[in-house]
Amino acid sequence: MKIIIALGGNAIIKKGEKETYHTLIKNIKLMSKNIAPIVKKYNAVITHGNGYEIGNLLLQNEISSKKVPPMPLDILGAESQGLIGYPLEEQLINELRNTKKEIVTVLTQVLVDEKDKAFRNPTKFIGPFYSYLEYKRLRRRYKIRKDSNRGYRRIVPSPKPVRILEAKTIEFLIKRGNVVICGGGGGIPIVNKKGKLKGVEGVIDKDWASSCIGKSINADILLILTGVDKVSLNYGEKNEIKLDKMSVKRAKRYLKEGYFPAGSMGPKIEASIDFLKKGKKVIITDVEHALKSLEGKAGTLITKR
Amino acid sequence: MKIIIALGGNAIIKKGEKETYHTLIKNIKLMSKNIAPIVKKYNAVITHGNGYEIGNLLLQNEISSKKVPPMPLDILGAESQGLIGYPLEEQLINELRNTKKEIVTVLTQVLVDEKDKAFRNPTKFIGPFYSYLEYKRLRRRYKIRKDSNRGYRRIVPSPKPVRILEAKTIEFLIKRGNVVICGGGGGIPIVNKKGKLKGVEGVIDKDWASSCIGKSINADILLILTGVDKVSLNYGEKNEIKLDKMSVKRAKRYLKEGYFPAGSMGPKIEASIDFLKKGKKVIITDVEHALKSLEGKAGTLITKR
Repeated sequence: MKIIIALGGNAIIKKGEKETYHTLIKNIKLMSKNIAPIVKKYNAVITHGNGYEIGNLLLQNEISSKKVPPMPLDILGAESQGLIGYPLEEQLINELRNTKKEIVTVLTQVLVDEKDKAFRNPTKFIGPFYSYLEYKRLRRRYKIRKDSNRGYRRIVPSPKPVRILEAKTIEFLIKRGNVVICGGGGGIPIVNKKGKLKGVEGVIDKDWASSCIGKSINADILLILTGVDKVSLNYGEKNEIKLDKMSVKRAKRYLKEGYFPAGSMGPKIEASIDFLKKGKKVIITDVEHALKSLEGKAGTLITKR
Repeated sequence: MKIIIALGGNAIIKKGEKETYHTLIKNIKLMSKNIAPIVKKYNAVITHGNGYEIGNLLLQNEISSKKVPPMPLDILGAESQGLIGYPLEEQLINELRNTKKEIVTVLTQVLVDEKDKAFRNPTKFIGPFYSYLEYKRLRRRYKIRKDSNRGYRRIVPSPKPVRILEAKTIEFLIKRGNVVICGGGGGIPIVNKKGKLKGVEGVIDKDWASSCIGKSINADILLILTGVDKVSLNYGEKNEIKLDKMSVKRAKRYLKEGYFPAGSMGPKIEASIDFLKKGKKVIITDVEHALKSLEGKAGTLITKR
């Protein structure tokens, strides 16, 4: 049984925490303990978010830009795959040291379509918040928009993943019994320009990338680990309803009726529906309920029908 | 025939160049053109240096330390494996697009011995130069020494590689026909503390790591690509002698007689001798002569006897 586990950014760094080496390792250790039993039992691929980390890398590149030429987003995405992939691999090895499973982290490039409408209409806020003065100084270099009332922020395209360049290798490694960490931060977005690959400035949604990887390697289950134990209708309201399960048909209806906000649960549900074109089931829950959810005792199960 | 190609840092960024995205891609593209014919012909593993890049990452971490908590060297090493591995993989795919070889970049952790004498006696200078005032401010945080007359600099241990954690997977991928980029910057140094892996602050010599990887995957040839077309005696002097070939015995003698300086050719020759305990031959040359050297028409060949 093949499973793809998509780790949300909040499994790596909690809201309000400052990412020091110490907190990074502490959180990843805890998370690894929670997913180790799953990794032992299934043929597992693990993907992860990088929102917080790419924000930090952007900030570092900006602050030190007079001394070190800043690198574009695709390079920073690759850096973040190392920054998170390495401690994740290390802590999983520590948790799995009595098994024979070898863990390997594969840099992942994801082909996107140059004509994806996301390039004309960027929607993904990234990096630090700017004051109005900083905005005026930076607006020639970057596309910057107001992000609610918290200030100004860079906005970049979030194109849909088309193909995972390393998919065949990843599938091969899984078959061999490796645990593969890949698709970090949604993968590094690249386009095909007249037969040549070229990185682009953008961020691919991590859950969409996970669905794309899952489909390419013929995974049975997509397990999305996020900040809530179940998907809800009317989230955070008095009349909140936690969902134990839903079909694709129902998920589509709720989505249409606006139950799942664009910035949070929306893309997860869309990516789930996409995965179920080929895969068998999707479970959405938090890290703590991961194992139980696979036994049918927690989380929200999404099925084809 | 299995080959391990060790790319020197100067193949990625030339002396005196400032590493912008543009120069990085330009240099890597040129280098990929030079090694593509080799990669087509052999089962190839590619390693690379990261001296310049880890220097930049250290500087970025330091300059922005009030806003973003700095990460230790092992994490920055992992970041540099993404920073370089990704464009290298991308440009190689572009060069090899008419072949079926799949290229994959594997994050690489290298086990070192906690009791390695390098930890008591650090010798590797890294990162930016400091003034005397900066030295006084930073000396409590880092170990800093005077680096010749150019200023003060951080000094870190350079332990010997003991075991490549991902070696079996890398060997497996090579057998399958993959081109594997790994061991970037000498790999991420980790120690085994009571059965648990833990990253350490240090830098493993890239050529020693390449020898270690080469031996673990039973490579036949180690091709070290550096800044000179041949190994010389009396390098840069009037009586310079360029060497076409030498045996391990002769290499050991020259080494003992002080012909190969510790900071440059010395470790390359030592790593070559180490590789030849198992491998068949070592060639040292520059990127431009790489292909010719394998035909016996360039470079310095080192053989067992």
